[in-house]
Amino acid sequence: MLYMIGLGLAYPEDITVRGLEAVKKCKKVFLEGYTSILMDATKESLEKFYGRKITIAYRETVESQSDEILADAKEDNVAFLVVGDVFGATTHTDLVIRAREQGIQVECIHNASVMNAVGACGLQLYKFGQAVSIVFFTDSWRPDSFYEKIMENRRIGLHTLLLLDIKVREPDFKELMKGHLTYEPPRYMSVAQCCQELLEVEEKKQEGAYTPDTPCVAISRLGSSEQSFKAATLKQLSEYDAGKPLHSVVMLGHQVHDLELEYLLDYADDKEAFKAAVKKDQQLFEKDEKKDN
Amino acid sequence: MLYMIGLGLAYPEDITVRGLEAVKKCKKVFLEGYTSILMDATKESLEKFYGRKITIAYRETVESQSDEILADAKEDNVAFLVVGDVFGATTHTDLVIRAREQGIQVECIHNASVMNAVGACGLQLYKFGQAVSIVFFTDSWRPDSFYEKIMENRRIGLHTLLLLDIKVREPDFKELMKGHLTYEPPRYMSVAQCCQELLEVEEKKQEGAYTPDTPCVAISRLGSSEQSFKAATLKQLSEYDAGKPLHSVVMLGHQVHDLELEYLLDYADDKEAFKAAVKKDQQLFEKDEKKDN
Repeated sequence: MLYMIGLGLAYPEDITVRGLEAVKKCKKVFLEGYTSILMDATKESLEKFYGRKITIAYRETVESQSDEILADAKEDNVAFLVVGDVFGATTHTDLVIRAREQGIQVECIHNASVMNAVGACGLQLYKFGQAVSIVFFTDSWRPDSFYEKIMENRRIGLHTLLLLDIKVREPDFKELMKGHLTYEPPRYMSVAQCCQELLEVEEKKQEGAYTPDTPCVAISRLGSSEQSFKAATLKQLSEYDAGKPLHSVVMLGHQVHDLELEYLLDYADDKEAFKAAVKKDQQLFEKDEKKDN
Repeated sequence: MLYMIGLGLAYPEDITVRGLEAVKKCKKVFLEGYTSILMDATKESLEKFYGRKITIAYRETVESQSDEILADAKEDNVAFLVVGDVFGATTHTDLVIRAREQGIQVECIHNASVMNAVGACGLQLYKFGQAVSIVFFTDSWRPDSFYEKIMENRRIGLHTLLLLDIKVREPDFKELMKGHLTYEPPRYMSVAQCCQELLEVEEKKQEGAYTPDTPCVAISRLGSSEQSFKAATLKQLSEYDAGKPLHSVVMLGHQVHDLELEYLLDYADDKEAFKAAVKKDQQLFEKDEKKDN
């Protein structure tokens, strides 16, 4: 049996009781180590909590490790632990498909992920459009396909959850060229970096998907004891220090309900200015809507 | 302290370890009883599992009960339990706002909800647009605002999660007129009912948001031991018996990735016919896209 188990967001104790019972039944326990991190836990604290040794599965070895995971799961109970919920990444879906092909039983034990816990910022989940990923820009690679997706969401008034890049195990290419495989220190995109990239792309495209004054919510360490929110404009958040990772950002759509705004104002430094920014931003797609009607 | 605790989808043991520890610290425990049900649990089995008495909070009494909850939370630890995750309904958001106003500390302990666990059907979460609610039609009330929202999602190729109505405590009006307050038996919308309503609205509107041949996924008892999926057309699902509640439906958007389709085919009775339906449906919004470009 292969147990696919979501770990939730922060603490070892964020696993469900059913998930913990399953881990304790497993002979081998794998933890995916490339799509996210459990903020208030380490491999060691998890091992202690589960009473099991953990093998970390990295993206670069997931193919060969999948074979190992599946071979083990044919004989014994095996757990594959995923930060957040189980189906956050296509590689996890792929693992389930391969297990099925080999006739291995799969049980999924779900948990919270940023995709639903983001409701903690006060915006209603059913008013979110598609989520988009924002990756670290490099000198030669500045992918901006998120722009069109944000535009699509905002045209119909929906909020957009921006998922920020993490790099937890990047090979150090300088060292690699000398024949040594070493890894760079982990990097987590900050709210400020994300907002700077968004501003850069809008400046280049000038299609008005959003402006520097578009209201957003910075989310720090969602689900942890240091969870915090800041409601401000995109420009303001591009200069905001959101503290320790992990971060996410929500860009508001124009369908902002009074109750949502009331909740958000608690996170705004200048409540009147934030209200004004929301109102101004709501006019941005009015022309589109009139054209449609 | 007010603990807002998500219970997940099905079993008493779907609560997180941290959530359970919090419940055990609480003097009073409330369970919201109007937005969803925990499929494989009863009030009694939860009380036994927690070692605590539970008070069910109903929609009709939530206002007055909120006062009671907040008064208690000023003095002691109080738990407010929510099926799924904490921020599924606006009434829960409202409770947090009122707690804050009264200076009561609030801690949220998240869990899985249909909003993220729906990934178990094989469709990628970041390709979902806004979720829509489908309510029971009555003779005089057949609200169809979901239609425009599905259209918005499908124009940009996104999948739509349809959340099906439940009625767990409807007053029996015939009895009420005789002066007796009694309740009708609980009702849960089935996949077939949902799809029939969708077909009726398309027939009336004829705007082509979807057709009887649009591919969908029926989801039964997500996260429970009897979880099952069926991939078929809207018309087929309007005649499909999805078994015991709770049910949900996903309507596909045209952005279907090969990996998504591969996963879904496992749930199709006729794989070739389902593939053909996906392909045919993808052409539906091609004209729109060409017009845009």
